Amino acid sequence: MLISSTVIGFILFINNVRFVVCQGTNFNCAVKPTQADTTDRLQRLRAHLKSNNLSAYVIFSEDEHQSEYVQLYDERRAWITGFLGSAGTAVVTLDSAALWTDGRYWTQAEDELDCRNWYLMRQGREGVPSLSNWLSSQVNSTPPYNHVGVAAQFVSSDWWQAVNNILNGKNASLVEVRELIDLIWSSPERPLAVANPINIHEFKYTGISWEDKVKAIAERLKVKHANAYVVTALDEVAWLFSLRGSDIPYNPFFKAYAIVNADQTTQLWLNRSQLTSAASNQLSKVNIHPYGSFLSDLNQLANQNDISQIWISSSASQAIFNRIPKEKLLIASSPVELTKALKNPIEEKGMRDCGIRDGVARVRHLTWLENQLNNNIIVNETKSAEQLELFQSEEALFQMLSFDSISAFGANAAIIHYSPKAQTAATITKNGLYLLDAGAQYLDCTTDVTRTHVFGTATEEQKNAYTLVLQGSIDLADAVFPYGTYGRSLDILTRQSLYRNSMDYNHGTGHGIGHFLSVHEGPSFISMGYSSSDIPLTDGMVFSDEPGFYLPGNFGIRLETDIVVKNYTLPNNYVNSATQFLHFEILTMVPFERNLIICKMLTEAQKDWLNWYHREVKSKLESTKRLNQDELRYLAEKTQEIKC
Amino acid sequence: MLISSTVIGFILFINNVRFVVCQGTNFNCAVKPTQADTTDRLQRLRAHLKSNNLSAYVIFSEDEHQSEYVQLYDERRAWITGFLGSAGTAVVTLDSAALWTDGRYWTQAEDELDCRNWYLMRQGREGVPSLSNWLSSQVNSTPPYNHVGVAAQFVSSDWWQAVNNILNGKNASLVEVRELIDLIWSSPERPLAVANPINIHEFKYTGISWEDKVKAIAERLKVKHANAYVVTALDEVAWLFSLRGSDIPYNPFFKAYAIVNADQTTQLWLNRSQLTSAASNQLSKVNIHPYGSFLSDLNQLANQNDISQIWISSSASQAIFNRIPKEKLLIASSPVELTKALKNPIEEKGMRDCGIRDGVARVRHLTWLENQLNNNIIVNETKSAEQLELFQSEEALFQMLSFDSISAFGANAAIIHYSPKAQTAATITKNGLYLLDAGAQYLDCTTDVTRTHVFGTATEEQKNAYTLVLQGSIDLADAVFPYGTYGRSLDILTRQSLYRNSMDYNHGTGHGIGHFLSVHEGPSFISMGYSSSDIPLTDGMVFSDEPGFYLPGNFGIRLETDIVVKNYTLPNNYVNSATQFLHFEILTMVPFERNLIICKMLTEAQKDWLNWYHREVKSKLESTKRLNQDELRYLAEKTQEIKC
Repeated sequence: MLISSTVIGFILFINNVRFVVCQGTNFNCAVKPTQADTTDRLQRLRAHLKSNNLSAYVIFSEDEHQSEYVQLYDERRAWITGFLGSAGTAVVTLDSAALWTDGRYWTQAEDELDCRNWYLMRQGREGVPSLSNWLSSQVNSTPPYNHVGVAAQFVSSDWWQAVNNILNGKNASLVEVRELIDLIWSSPERPLAVANPINIHEFKYTGISWEDKVKAIAERLKVKHANAYVVTALDEVAWLFSLRGSDIPYNPFFKAYAIVNADQTTQLWLNRSQLTSAASNQLSKVNIHPYGSFLSDLNQLANQNDISQIWISSSASQAIFNRIPKEKLLIASSPVELTKALKNPIEEKGMRDCGIRDGVARVRHLTWLENQLNNNIIVNETKSAEQLELFQSEEALFQMLSFDSISAFGANAAIIHYSPKAQTAATITKNGLYLLDAGAQYLDCTTDVTRTHVFGTATEEQKNAYTLVLQGSIDLADAVFPYGTYGRSLDILTRQSLYRNSMDYNHGTGHGIGHFLSVHEGPSFISMGYSSSDIPLTDGMVFSDEPGFYLPGNFGIRLETDIVVKNYTLPNNYVNSATQFLHFEILTMVPFERNLIICKMLTEAQKDWLNWYHREVKSKLESTKRLNQDELRYLAEKTQEIKC
Repeated sequence: MLISSTVIGFILFINNVRFVVCQGTNFNCAVKPTQADTTDRLQRLRAHLKSNNLSAYVIFSEDEHQSEYVQLYDERRAWITGFLGSAGTAVVTLDSAALWTDGRYWTQAEDELDCRNWYLMRQGREGVPSLSNWLSSQVNSTPPYNHVGVAAQFVSSDWWQAVNNILNGKNASLVEVRELIDLIWSSPERPLAVANPINIHEFKYTGISWEDKVKAIAERLKVKHANAYVVTALDEVAWLFSLRGSDIPYNPFFKAYAIVNADQTTQLWLNRSQLTSAASNQLSKVNIHPYGSFLSDLNQLANQNDISQIWISSSASQAIFNRIPKEKLLIASSPVELTKALKNPIEEKGMRDCGIRDGVARVRHLTWLENQLNNNIIVNETKSAEQLELFQSEEALFQMLSFDSISAFGANAAIIHYSPKAQTAATITKNGLYLLDAGAQYLDCTTDVTRTHVFGTATEEQKNAYTLVLQGSIDLADAVFPYGTYGRSLDILTRQSLYRNSMDYNHGTGHGIGHFLSVHEGPSFISMGYSSSDIPLTDGMVFSDEPGFYLPGNFGIRLETDIVVKNYTLPNNYVNSATQFLHFEILTMVPFERNLIICKMLTEAQKDWLNWYHREVKSKLESTKRLNQDELRYLAEKTQEIKC
């Protein structure tokens, strides 16, 4: 699954440009039945703006931990705007309201955003003002009304600084305020906050005790002469204490903050009632505090005389920045993120094992799907995804999906971030390509796999494009590179075959994958772009390898295989080089679509790799004894040697 | 030819580490006859240190323009130390003296550095203090003696700031002083400053008038709201005014500074007597001043009220920074460097044409060399290089070599920056590999070509390594990539074949090449490393493509081919993509060594490329009618189709 391309608004404001989507009760807009009426909500919010002397208030999509997915309780931005898409930022002033969202969500926003009250700001479109520029054009610059309220726990300090700088130019500024939506949105209208049980993640899956993880982090603190590290990302807390919850969709997380001290003591802020007794026992040495007291506790701690330096990650919220005296702040890449990314042998074994179990579910699903089509039973995109989930859930250690499956037929597959809806899902037929990007959370791993299939015959242009994407996929999977190599140096390997035909795909090639954690994890990635926080590929890091090609209105192809970086042991013929080389071991065990491969386009090395891979897939899936006769027949057929 | 890997000293000072190379008159060192006695020179220099209240004085290898090559007159650092290598920085304190140079020059420094008076600081070796740390440990911290003198025109502001910061920590600082070596080193001991004629570079070679170049730069100034750009690099001045000189070895440059104003007026600081009358006429509209008055004129100009912003490149000297008020400084990549890098059609034609003429000289030289060896005539590395120069000089428009040829046989070829000396040059035999990295300046281009040859039979390991290097060379030459791609993304293409065998080479893959200018030019390069001043590859940029493999003490292989970035016109089969793709056109026309190629290791695409390239080489070199029967025989033999 692709990383969402978060677009940050840097478009300059251009006067007199039309950016209003619709004119409603206020603007004479054509209100659709899919739009909620937010008039009353806004009226109540504005009363709080006035009582706080605020010119405007900003509402974000993220929760306090800058999570990729949030629970319904935290969907404040969706509630105040009516727009249900996952990315977007809303601004409410005393007499106006606007939502910024990127190109993936414009159509959805046109359907859902309450156009009586809201402007749709098509972020990234020429002439559309950026949030900061629009804000600074709207804000009152007369004290004490020249303030824009922000609940700082929902936003990164990068955002805060960038926007505040622009507001300062207009004699206005951001101010930290308490969350105002929480004052006007409550049960029964508001879903309850999820507070599911927090379980221990057993040693047999983690391969290391949580105490040893804390010890490793404490060592890093000493090197940096920091007294403490503030753990704010939910996957970091879950990993560090070997705990898992289910407060967040698709992620086995629970809401918590933590602090690791250089002396190896730790503190946790969470809802203690969520802890199972086993989890409670495991945390007997940990100082546990209520979740809600975190910011004030942090502030108190940070002001202690014996604390000289507190390490926080640059992705921590502005609220955390605000609680620590500037001279005590050490802002650097998270030591937990880095350590977590390097899977240990037990975690690697889990990733390997469940790559096979996930492959079993995929082959069962594909056999089922082929049979349905052969028997003229109608299956749409949603039904197909549900059936895969059923097969996945029959595999050992299954917990939940790792993201909302992208089950996309025909032209839908050309929409990179497509997600089928039951009402509008397309029927899968023999006449087109079917792209399935799906993954699951198992106790011993997280998977994220895309294959593109055909159940009838494909056109030559589809086969040509599929083969080019496959070549790129193999060229990366088969790469060898020395220690010190960054993902950005490898990215071109997946694109050379496409480039040669003036083709490309408009997304990165690979993202890190967690171990029964988030399907997207840092700090490394495989993508052309330079990032100062990137680190070189290292033995134990798991990535996706996912080139694609998308022909809008026609078809889409993506092939995503999970791979793990491993030391490469073949010595050179000349000298015992001091350089250690690396390569990838393949975790995903799902056949490619032989009916879409033009054999003569492959190099000998690519053909050898593909046939080796298919032999691996066949032998590993067969050895599970989980496939019936028909499924074994399907597997044998799809993994036959490719010759030309 | 490779770019020198300038190593900047960031090694921490470690107490009590032995870094003294020798103990002489002062240190009981073993003085070699190759070492000059610098005692008197240092005594005279120290008298000036005292009269200026300086604790220390720093002497650099570069001239006022941070040139890659300097004339003998400017070899101040060589004169004061005795060490003649081209890279190194010297520090003289009142009672000590030390030279920093990188690993390429340690052996030479051991032979040449005056060990009675100097410490050799092996820059980059563990335990060796960096220049700045050593300085700060030696400097007097009591005012007014807490100053280190630097002639700021010889050093970049990056260096100044980094060193000054460290000195400040010791209550000391750098101060700009006049060049002190010039006070103690003069004719007849000192070579005279070269002041050769400055000629016009004709429109038939440049394809654009100098006025049009100035216009293009002035446009860029307007975009940045800058009043003027200060041109400090010698290749920039030469290119901008379509002039060429010969003050600097291997480079057709003359010493000059220039300023381009946003109103398209220009000023030049140079020695007017060097201008030929044609050059004088060409410059009739230019305001010409004496070279020596540049810094004071700049200071005066920068302080004018009507000047609000002066653009300088980040590689300009600290002396220039010091002359411009901080609030008026705009530091950004040079607009001249960028414009110059994009060769126009006439310049490209020149690069193409002389790639062929240079190829003629190479084939004549190789035929000659083969004949010498077949006739048992002894040829050493120096003689071979001289013979190539003779053949190059017989080609039209030849001016001079573009660098000191690397003519290296056997184990010498494994020394990446080897340069043969007449006394110690190895004899070329049939029993080993011969690497020849050579280039020339022609009126219509600059060349830089490396081939590795064998005249007898090679071992399987040599052939294997040669073929792997060749595969990388082809993979880059044959690459396709979209606009926006940086050289850093392409670098891995040349290394994949080597990596697969746990092999690599410890240098970048490609550097920009000038048009009858410098053999190394910015701003782009093809190398893994990230640089914030790098820009994407663009139609018209010329690069080297030079992978290699070096087995110390045994053999070295490098294959360097000059290539130009061109728009790629093959449309994709699917859609008229808005993306413009690029590829490389090959400029160098010299056959590869078929006796070193293991055909079955090549992919079909590599074999096709190689056979296509050899057909091109054959047909283009034949069409010149410059080759005799024997040379044509050699050419035909070396460009025969490779089959397996």
